Amino acid sequence: MNQSNDTRLNAPPMALALDAAEHAAAHGDVPVGAVIIDRQQSAILAITGNRVEIDNDPCGHAEILALRAAAAILGTARLVNCDLYVTLEPCAMCAQAIALARIRRLYFGAYDPKGGGVEHGARIFQQATCHHRPEVYGGIKEAQAAALLKKFFASLR
Amino acid sequence: MNQSNDTRLNAPPMALALDAAEHAAAHGDVPVGAVIIDRQQSAILAITGNRVEIDNDPCGHAEILALRAAAAILGTARLVNCDLYVTLEPCAMCAQAIALARIRRLYFGAYDPKGGGVEHGARIFQQATCHHRPEVYGGIKEAQAAALLKKFFASLR
Repeated sequence: MNQSNDTRLNAPPMALALDAAEHAAAHGDVPVGAVIIDRQQSAILAITGNRVEIDNDPCGHAEILALRAAAAILGTARLVNCDLYVTLEPCAMCAQAIALARIRRLYFGAYDPKGGGVEHGARIFQQATCHHRPEVYGGIKEAQAAALLKKFFASLR
Repeated sequence: MNQSNDTRLNAPPMALALDAAEHAAAHGDVPVGAVIIDRQQSAILAITGNRVEIDNDPCGHAEILALRAAAAILGTARLVNCDLYVTLEPCAMCAQAIALARIRRLYFGAYDPKGGGVEHGARIFQQATCHHRPEVYGGIKEAQAAALLKKFFASLR
């Protein structure tokens, strides 16, 4: 994907999220990207990549940054008409944040058996302590998302 | 507790966290407060209260704000010598963030059967997807923390 292409924002949300994931890898962060779409306004509210390492932020996952950015734009902590796209299955931190933010639909790319909190481990949305459950669609552009991660971790060895 | 008392920072960390919780209630946020101590430097790195409502931030729980502030001060996303005090059992978002930040010890006040993620629900630190487990001490100044919450929710009715 060409970053300087003016038609970039016509790309499907997961393609934009993959783009953001590639940017994250370029600054040494795990390549995960996220996008939040406001369905009511048909607007992209946030395109973010992981920034844990570059910002020294333990909570700097792409999803958290996207939720905070979108909430700041809308002026509310509850993103009731919004969908979140992310290239990797969210961890438990991000899954619970997605629930707290009342995200309508979650679309994710690769499954994460080692660190995921949606289909693995804590399975956040299945807990009685979870008070909002988004619709969840996994495996969207899964191969591309997984390839980015594989390439990144291979480069660290 | 007197906010203007110069000896305030000699108070035990949980008393400071309760203080921050009271401040949160004053601006309409659920009264939860957190403190992070760097044990190596014997320094208080962060004293934070919930800011979800006042900042329109779905991730604005006291623990997340404290972790981000402490990491910014230390210039690292990994708070290996730090302990976190919080007046309420962390939710799954905050518990996973505590694990990601490599917090050494977690001290919490009131237990939270409806929304907690440490001793209830997702039980984050007991999951195979959790790669760092802090030592956990619950029930510290539990009655005071619970009384603050009870008063706050009663005032909303």
